[in-house]
Amino acid sequence: MWQVSDADLEAIAIGAGILGTGGGGNPYVGQLRAKQAIKKWGPVTVLAPEELPEDAQVVCVGGIGAPTVGVEKIRDVQSYHALRAIESYTGKKATALISNEIGGSNSVEPMIPAAMAGLPVVDADGMGRAFPEFQMKTFFVYGVPCCPMALADEKGNTVIIPQAVSPKWAERLARAVTVQMGCVACYAVTPMTTEQVQTTAVLHTLSLARDLGNAVNNARRRKEDVLEAIFKTCPGKTLFSGKIVDLERRTTSGFARGTVSLTGLGDYNGQELAIDFQNENLVARRNGQIVCTVPDLICVVDTDTGEPVTTELLRYGLRVTVLGLPSPHQWTSPQGLAVVGPQAFGYDVGYTPLAL
Amino acid sequence: MWQVSDADLEAIAIGAGILGTGGGGNPYVGQLRAKQAIKKWGPVTVLAPEELPEDAQVVCVGGIGAPTVGVEKIRDVQSYHALRAIESYTGKKATALISNEIGGSNSVEPMIPAAMAGLPVVDADGMGRAFPEFQMKTFFVYGVPCCPMALADEKGNTVIIPQAVSPKWAERLARAVTVQMGCVACYAVTPMTTEQVQTTAVLHTLSLARDLGNAVNNARRRKEDVLEAIFKTCPGKTLFSGKIVDLERRTTSGFARGTVSLTGLGDYNGQELAIDFQNENLVARRNGQIVCTVPDLICVVDTDTGEPVTTELLRYGLRVTVLGLPSPHQWTSPQGLAVVGPQAFGYDVGYTPLAL
Repeated sequence: MWQVSDADLEAIAIGAGILGTGGGGNPYVGQLRAKQAIKKWGPVTVLAPEELPEDAQVVCVGGIGAPTVGVEKIRDVQSYHALRAIESYTGKKATALISNEIGGSNSVEPMIPAAMAGLPVVDADGMGRAFPEFQMKTFFVYGVPCCPMALADEKGNTVIIPQAVSPKWAERLARAVTVQMGCVACYAVTPMTTEQVQTTAVLHTLSLARDLGNAVNNARRRKEDVLEAIFKTCPGKTLFSGKIVDLERRTTSGFARGTVSLTGLGDYNGQELAIDFQNENLVARRNGQIVCTVPDLICVVDTDTGEPVTTELLRYGLRVTVLGLPSPHQWTSPQGLAVVGPQAFGYDVGYTPLAL
Repeated sequence: MWQVSDADLEAIAIGAGILGTGGGGNPYVGQLRAKQAIKKWGPVTVLAPEELPEDAQVVCVGGIGAPTVGVEKIRDVQSYHALRAIESYTGKKATALISNEIGGSNSVEPMIPAAMAGLPVVDADGMGRAFPEFQMKTFFVYGVPCCPMALADEKGNTVIIPQAVSPKWAERLARAVTVQMGCVACYAVTPMTTEQVQTTAVLHTLSLARDLGNAVNNARRRKEDVLEAIFKTCPGKTLFSGKIVDLERRTTSGFARGTVSLTGLGDYNGQELAIDFQNENLVARRNGQIVCTVPDLICVVDTDTGEPVTTELLRYGLRVTVLGLPSPHQWTSPQGLAVVGPQAFGYDVGYTPLAL
C-alpha cells in the first residue's frame, strides 16, 4: 500500500509512456490531470492486489479514442461519470478502481475518479502494456464479462452497453459511440471480484511503471546510460536507433493509424526501420524484415533522455531508439494471441517471441 | 378499442405507406411481420388515446436505420428486446406500446412486441407521418424526455443511452450504434404517462392509416379513382404525375439519401419534378421551383393503383403520382419547425404551408 505522490506520478508518466508502446494517451497530460485531481479532491492510495479485501468490487476505468485527438481535447472527469453510470446501472458500488492499461495517461486515469470518490487504486492493469481496442484486456481473455460497460463524454452524454455478443462487439459499439463523442471518451466496466482481479490482471504494473520512471530519472541525474537503466528494470533489447525520416499518420475510425520510418544512426547506419501503429506500435520491420510484433512491446524513446515518444508526438527529425520488451505471459498463450497476436491486427504472420 | 385483423394490417400497410412519405420501412414487410406475430403470439388490441387508463406506462418502439437495408435485412423481434431492455433499465413495466411514426413498417412495429408481451397498442404515434431521425418526434418537441432509450439488434447486442444532452445527441449516438448493428436496429424509449401521450402524440393515426388503406382498396375494387379516394380521407393535392427517369440513391451514415427525378405525363407533359429524400421525401421541386417541403407530406404513389412507392422501391420507369398532404399541426408551430422544417434538414428556405 502506498500513497501516490507528485514524484510518483512524474515517474509513472515516464514508465507508462515506455510501457504504453506509443499509446494509452499522452502521459504528460495524464500526469498533470492526476496531480490536479489529487490536489483538488484528496490523496489516492495504491493497494497491491494481495491487499484487496475479499469482497472488493473493482471497477476498471479508462479512456478510449485516438491519442492524436486526446492530446488536443484533454479529458476532464468523464471517467468519474462513467464510473457512476456503471454503479447506477449495476446497483453495485465500486470499492476500488483499476487501470485498463498501464500505458500513457490511461495508467493514471483511475486516479482521477479515485480521488473524487475516495477509492483506492489497485496496483495492476488489464494489459501490462497498452493496446488500442476495448476487448484487448487480460480480464476478458480469462473469463471476466466485458459488459455491462458505460461510456461518458465531456458534454453530459452517457451510453451503456448492457450486453454484447462478444468483447469485440462491445469494442465495435463503444468505438462508434466514441467517434460521435468527439473521438475522446471514458469508460467503466462492471465490477470485478477480488479473485477475478488476482487471477486475470497483469499484477504490480503501477509499481513497475513507477520504478521504470525512477530508473530513467536516476540515470539522467547521474548521467548514466538511460537505455541500460530501462533494461535493468524491464529486460529487453535495442531494436534500432536512428532518426525519424517519414511519418504517415491518419486519425480514422476512432484510432490514430499510420507508419513511422527511421533511418539508422551509429550502429544502425545505412539501415532502416518502419513501425506500423494503431494507437500503439504493432509491427517493427528492420530493412524489410519483421523484428518485433505484438504482443511484444515496441517502445520508442528519445535516444538521449529515454523520454517515451508516444504516437501523437512522433515527428520528422526526432532522434529515437526503438526498444523491444517481451510481452506479459498472459498474452502469449493461444487465447491471448487470438486477441492481440499479429493476426488479430490483420497481419498474415505468426507470433515469434522476441529473442533476448 | 379494436382488435387488429389481417385485413386491418393490409389496409394499414397501404395507408402508412402513403403517410410515410417514402420512409418508415417497407410497409409490405411490416405487414407480413405483424401478421405472423399475431398468429404466433396472439391478438393485439388497439386502444384509443382516450381509452388509456390514467396510470398507463406507454413505451414508444420503432425501427431505426436505412429502408434500403431494411428491405433486405428483415427485422425480427429486436423491438421486443429493446422494450425489455428499457423496462429493465427503468424498472417500469410497459402497459401499452405506441408507434414512433405512422409510416411504413414502423406503423405496425409495436404490434410485434405487443403480441409477444400481451400489451395493447395506442391509436397514435410520434410524428403523424415518418421522419428519418430519432429526435423528430412530437413527444420530445412537447416536453417528453427522449432518454433513457434502448437499442437492440438481431445478434443479441443491446445499448442503452441513459442520458443525452439533447434529443439530437440521442439521435447521433443511436445512429452510430445502428450503423454498427448493420444499419437496421430497433429501439424503445422510456415510458410515457397517459397525459404525456394524450397531449404530445399525433392522435388516431393508426385508424387513419387503416381508413386510408381501406379507401384505396375500395376504390380499386370499384374501379374508382384511387387518388380521389385518398384525398377524401386525407385532404391534399396532386403535385405531379409522370415517370421516374433518374434515381440517385446512396446508403450513407445510416440513411438512404438521394434524389429521384420525374418527367411529366398527361397534364404534366413537358414538365419535371425532382424530390430529395433522406429515408423520407424532404423537398419537391417542379421545374426547379419548390412546390412542397417538410413537414408537409410528399407522397409518391403508383398512378394506377395508388400503391405507395417507398424510398427503397423507387426505380427507373415507374409511373407515379406525387401527392402533397398538409403536415399535422404539431409540426407547423415554431418549435415543431425548428426540429423538422426545411432548415432542420439543411435547406436554406423557410416553410411555406402547402396551399390546397
